[in-house]
Amino acid sequence: MHANSPHPLLHYKIPNPNLPTFTPQPSSAVLHLSYPNLISSNNMAPKSSVAGALALFLLCFNLLHHAAHGKGYATTGLTSAQQCHLDRIQASQPTHRIESEGGTTEIWDQKEDQFQCAGVAVIRTTIRPDSLYLPEFMNAPRLAFIERGRGILGITYPGCPETYHSEGQAGSKGRREEAGERGRGQDLHQKVQRIRRGDLVAIPEGAVHWCHNDGDEELVAVTVVDLNNQANQLDQRLRAFFLAGGQGRSEGGVSRINFHNIFAAFDDDILAEAYDVPSEIIRNLKRDDGRGFIVNPQRRIKVMVPEEQEKETHFEEQRRGRSSRSRRFSPSWSREGADNGLEETFCTMKMRHNMETRRESDVFSRQAGRLNLVNMNKLPILGWIDMSAERGNLLPNALYSPHWSMTDHRVVYVTGGDAHVQISGPKGQNVFDERVSQGSVFVIPQFFVTVARAGNNGFEWVSFKTSSQPMQSPLAGYTSVFRALPLQIITNAYQISSREAEELKYNREHQTFLLSPSRKSIRMPVA
Amino acid sequence: MHANSPHPLLHYKIPNPNLPTFTPQPSSAVLHLSYPNLISSNNMAPKSSVAGALALFLLCFNLLHHAAHGKGYATTGLTSAQQCHLDRIQASQPTHRIESEGGTTEIWDQKEDQFQCAGVAVIRTTIRPDSLYLPEFMNAPRLAFIERGRGILGITYPGCPETYHSEGQAGSKGRREEAGERGRGQDLHQKVQRIRRGDLVAIPEGAVHWCHNDGDEELVAVTVVDLNNQANQLDQRLRAFFLAGGQGRSEGGVSRINFHNIFAAFDDDILAEAYDVPSEIIRNLKRDDGRGFIVNPQRRIKVMVPEEQEKETHFEEQRRGRSSRSRRFSPSWSREGADNGLEETFCTMKMRHNMETRRESDVFSRQAGRLNLVNMNKLPILGWIDMSAERGNLLPNALYSPHWSMTDHRVVYVTGGDAHVQISGPKGQNVFDERVSQGSVFVIPQFFVTVARAGNNGFEWVSFKTSSQPMQSPLAGYTSVFRALPLQIITNAYQISSREAEELKYNREHQTFLLSPSRKSIRMPVA
Amino acid sequence: MHANSPHPLLHYKIPNPNLPTFTPQPSSAVLHLSYPNLISSNNMAPKSSVAGALALFLLCFNLLHHAAHGKGYATTGLTSAQQCHLDRIQASQPTHRIESEGGTTEIWDQKEDQFQCAGVAVIRTTIRPDSLYLPEFMNAPRLAFIERGRGILGITYPGCPETYHSEGQAGSKGRREEAGERGRGQDLHQKVQRIRRGDLVAIPEGAVHWCHNDGDEELVAVTVVDLNNQANQLDQRLRAFFLAGGQGRSEGGVSRINFHNIFAAFDDDILAEAYDVPSEIIRNLKRDDGRGFIVNPQRRIKVMVPEEQEKETHFEEQRRGRSSRSRRFSPSWSREGADNGLEETFCTMKMRHNMETRRESDVFSRQAGRLNLVNMNKLPILGWIDMSAERGNLLPNALYSPHWSMTDHRVVYVTGGDAHVQISGPKGQNVFDERVSQGSVFVIPQFFVTVARAGNNGFEWVSFKTSSQPMQSPLAGYTSVFRALPLQIITNAYQISSREAEELKYNREHQTFLLSPSRKSIRMPVA
Repeated sequence: MHANSPHPLLHYKIPNPNLPTFTPQPSSAVLHLSYPNLISSNNMAPKSSVAGALALFLLCFNLLHHAAHGKGYATTGLTSAQQCHLDRIQASQPTHRIESEGGTTEIWDQKEDQFQCAGVAVIRTTIRPDSLYLPEFMNAPRLAFIERGRGILGITYPGCPETYHSEGQAGSKGRREEAGERGRGQDLHQKVQRIRRGDLVAIPEGAVHWCHNDGDEELVAVTVVDLNNQANQLDQRLRAFFLAGGQGRSEGGVSRINFHNIFAAFDDDILAEAYDVPSEIIRNLKRDDGRGFIVNPQRRIKVMVPEEQEKETHFEEQRRGRSSRSRRFSPSWSREGADNGLEETFCTMKMRHNMETRRESDVFSRQAGRLNLVNMNKLPILGWIDMSAERGNLLPNALYSPHWSMTDHRVVYVTGGDAHVQISGPKGQNVFDERVSQGSVFVIPQFFVTVARAGNNGFEWVSFKTSSQPMQSPLAGYTSVFRALPLQIITNAYQISSREAEELKYNREHQTFLLSPSRKSIRMPVA
Repeated sequence: MHANSPHPLLHYKIPNPNLPTFTPQPSSAVLHLSYPNLISSNNMAPKSSVAGALALFLLCFNLLHHAAHGKGYATTGLTSAQQCHLDRIQASQPTHRIESEGGTTEIWDQKEDQFQCAGVAVIRTTIRPDSLYLPEFMNAPRLAFIERGRGILGITYPGCPETYHSEGQAGSKGRREEAGERGRGQDLHQKVQRIRRGDLVAIPEGAVHWCHNDGDEELVAVTVVDLNNQANQLDQRLRAFFLAGGQGRSEGGVSRINFHNIFAAFDDDILAEAYDVPSEIIRNLKRDDGRGFIVNPQRRIKVMVPEEQEKETHFEEQRRGRSSRSRRFSPSWSREGADNGLEETFCTMKMRHNMETRRESDVFSRQAGRLNLVNMNKLPILGWIDMSAERGNLLPNALYSPHWSMTDHRVVYVTGGDAHVQISGPKGQNVFDERVSQGSVFVIPQFFVTVARAGNNGFEWVSFKTSSQPMQSPLAGYTSVFRALPLQIITNAYQISSREAEELKYNREHQTFLLSPSRKSIRMPVA
Repeated sequence: MHANSPHPLLHYKIPNPNLPTFTPQPSSAVLHLSYPNLISSNNMAPKSSVAGALALFLLCFNLLHHAAHGKGYATTGLTSAQQCHLDRIQASQPTHRIESEGGTTEIWDQKEDQFQCAGVAVIRTTIRPDSLYLPEFMNAPRLAFIERGRGILGITYPGCPETYHSEGQAGSKGRREEAGERGRGQDLHQKVQRIRRGDLVAIPEGAVHWCHNDGDEELVAVTVVDLNNQANQLDQRLRAFFLAGGQGRSEGGVSRINFHNIFAAFDDDILAEAYDVPSEIIRNLKRDDGRGFIVNPQRRIKVMVPEEQEKETHFEEQRRGRSSRSRRFSPSWSREGADNGLEETFCTMKMRHNMETRRESDVFSRQAGRLNLVNMNKLPILGWIDMSAERGNLLPNALYSPHWSMTDHRVVYVTGGDAHVQISGPKGQNVFDERVSQGSVFVIPQFFVTVARAGNNGFEWVSFKTSSQPMQSPLAGYTSVFRALPLQIITNAYQISSREAEELKYNREHQTFLLSPSRKSIRMPVA
């Protein structure tokens, strides 16, 4: 029977509709042999050996794909050892979507070869106006790019001082009077930051972060988590630990995610004792009311951040320079007796950098476009987490020079326009050849050569890099490898004349990275 | 047939003679075959196919676990890529026990998920009075905690000077006279150190170490080897290379371990030539007389260490400060012409730190207990090997605040008392919920949240960390994340009142890490 | 039964419809399928189930080895997680051979356990006189040792200045006149270096390198690529990206390699636009004329390098010291506005060091031989790529002291003479016992103990190390571990007399690493 039927697919990414019973559970799991599979295959099988054999196959199969425990946000991914099967890369859209009360979380399929190889997870979070993304931390450092909207964000670090005084809330007055030293209706907490469209935010591994959309439109953030980072001593699977909330609704197959916040694992009485509070409060900590990870506050949140109290006309300048610097060195920041000796490292580090600032462009061409690079020299925290980012803008029909990265993988998220992108593997095989547009994500693996040509509306993207000091090697332009090669090497390598070699070497000698559309070239439509 | 026969052994050290054809090669098991699965497939499938199926299964199974070559002390472990299957962690006791003439070696099962994930091996060594643990080195750095007894220890490093003069032995006089420059009955060798109960000892990868129990009671050391350390370029398997001894008796199934010292692999004549000695001596180097790794010396060993010649009444002070410091900078340590230029790195580095010193406590609370942290700031060699340790003591019913580590895995060894420990995974699942007591070992994985409450007799432990600068983030106490969060975020995250949020934030505001038992809490018995 | 039906895919990326029986693809072999197991289980199982079972087995097997994509130069290797199955190491010869127009490329089998464990690829390149090795880069840093011949070599780096002026070529005059500023028949390009027999060359990952044999004999280079290096964020597979050429002829099974240069993957019109050149030139870039990676230039290449214009009688001194230094600090090297800020790092770094210079020997013994070590202190670029090398020469019958490396794997390439080499594993098992001679390659894994005795004609080798600061621990000689041990430990460990222990400790006290043949030893023939 089964021998003649279409064969069970060996590639775990392509479910085969014809084999209901043998369909490997996506979540199958390594150690944890999956019972149902085994049993159902037995049921299906005739007395022959096929059943056992297939069952075994599935066993082996399951054993092989030892990772995917369930599909929650927390452990979406599945990884064994890092593997780079990069014969074919494809731009992709998120495959999982989790609905919360106040927004949605979309996750790209971590099992895709490109993400496996780069060791990254990609997430897009949408927070509706007034909603609150609940505090969580992850097992690896990440960079978030604010694609749309504005909000306030907190990244807390143990031992960092509580240097911000916000207003407290009505109703807590009595309590505050008891605890007199916190005085006059104020609440002390760690630094809170304003974020806006175009910001890049660095969040170290294990640091709790929360975010509140206090703007008028949706706040959309695209996040890349560098799971392969040395800071993560667990395996390459994404793990998110929420301090509140739980149980969102998942669209994409699973009706309900088995997910709780971290307090769910502890006994009420132990927590009550740890906090020295009545156990009713503990039950609230653990409460799982299906609101998910993003919630609608009962009362409007009003946390102060410096920018809001200052005149905002020159905010760009302030953000870049003076205000943030003076804030960092202000006496209110110094405080003796912090516990982790971190005041001069994390506590005062800038975590955020705006990438839209035109006058900060690192590459700028009136004919081709511009690039804003944010590496550890611009944002020192990036040296700590060993990541960086690039914000790019290509004018219509302009090109990104063919080049390769010597240092990092890049995860490209398209924010606007479209482009025709090609990537070459080590044997000259074309591994990527697509027209990408808004919302597409693809990985350019380290060393793989790539080129992009913007469409008629230009092309805008942000790319996240797995190195804090990325370096790329262009094939055209004045920093290109052809410029570096002696003419005689070029002529002999390609059996061309000196004149032709000089054209290769010098025709783009006044441009680098971004190349203007040339007049003589013929545009061919892309299939 | 086979379904009813004794099951294939899952433990690779215990060959089962009853299963000739299906016997997994000793090297099998790593992934914790789950019995129930195996059985159900047997029951369902017809007899004829079961055999082949099982055979295949086991083959696949074997292929999957391609690691365990042989069974000695040296390669007990077996690892493929690092995997963190942490749905269920369990406190464990050693599973292997090797008897030597002068003591025993107990090894925890490296195949346990918790040790696989953390990339560590755990060993407890017991050396009887007067016995000698023979010189060996391992493929990764390790920390040893002296749980009981005292002794002397040598860690030798190539190129470090021979700065210690011990007495030679009777009978070698003639020889010494020939080699006149070593003069007057003395023997030159590298530094030797006194170790005592409560000491933490750092042993770098590849460095030869030996240990002699010159006290009156058993010397017990618990060692954690950081196999995942960058210094180890081999895979994650534990490898011990002994320079002498061999062939201990193993209890736990195997009658005799196939283990020799490293000289066994070389030809007699080559060794005789390398040492320029008669081959009778070489035969002694290679001799394997079943005494194992810990032997009884024929003559009482009397190696001098500074402490023994000095007045010992203030030894604690000496150990901590002056004596060791003056020793390090004494002129006898300087020596020109050493080969590896290491005199200022390893050669004079302190390798040892006592963790029992009460006045060195980093956290101290009359109501809750104390913590002694030993990181690279206290013991600089830890920066080199990227490990650290914590010695803790909880008073009866006190708590270790719920917290997670941002930097490292922790291997906890319980030295006394008991505690109820809980650990939460990323989806709020409880992955550990046990009452642990003396001798238990468990891993708290990086980022996983844990809490502990001491029993009625208190709780004492040492934990070994896979980072030289560990940092943890508490959930309660004055460095907690709640303190760092604005009140409005807490109220809205948990739908609680400001008053309740302030209780969470401030009720433990004068404590950190260790929390005293609260009067209002209700103690519930643990199931 | 199932044998005749279309088979489930063996390799999950390459569907094979024909699949004769169960032959594993040649690319399989990594995990040492144990045939005996397979066969015995077949015998036991009834016929009907065997086929399916075997098929399944092979499926599992193939799934396990999900790596081997084809066999070109670019991705010869196959790696999953690093695994060290080191029960038996064997000296090996290259297994793949690619013929190009101007020379040959020989590749050692990356699937061998020893190379898998060390994470290295080994390549020998032979360039015939006048031929040109085409520009390429690889996904990991490498060290090349010039075994024979001489040539010129370029290593280009993006952003480094074009500081060399070569003569242009006839025929390009008109063009050059147009582009007046490059003036008078000269061509500007990056630094070019002379290489000779005995040179060690360091090539960072991602840096384009080319090489021209301008001597009278074949230029032979042995290269070790450190795939396990942190600089490589892809997996452990070797990937070479050629900028020109393609399609060599392979001997060793495959008739034709599916290999192109990186331009093959891109559309003509995009490239034409990127270079702003007519598409005829682009077709030349992509042309694949079966000449392979090493080509015969149409016109004799004449690139100037400093040494050729200077008096060469003292070239050794120049190479070592003054000339290169003055070159580095010459004003022609300073240039403002380079793009990667690399002028003071890569751009002026010495990439090359001659290892034959007798007066630079680090160990020198009239009776035993000499060692030249090149680590990061001699050649700072090695600190960057974290590799180093050793050039050794043993006189007839002399020994390399038994020792182990504390820091690195070593890949030994024998350049002359022969030696009897033994390696011991952690359980004293002999894992290597061979007489090696010219052209043999073997790996000495980190921590494994090894000894070598030269044959009657002496022994010459170069070894490549996976650490920039290698350290080894000898068992004999004046830096040996026995010297470091107290005499009483030695006597008790081996149950020998003090006199015998002193012989072990001091008989070689005036030698280190290299040991002269002793007169009293008996030479036994090696089987």
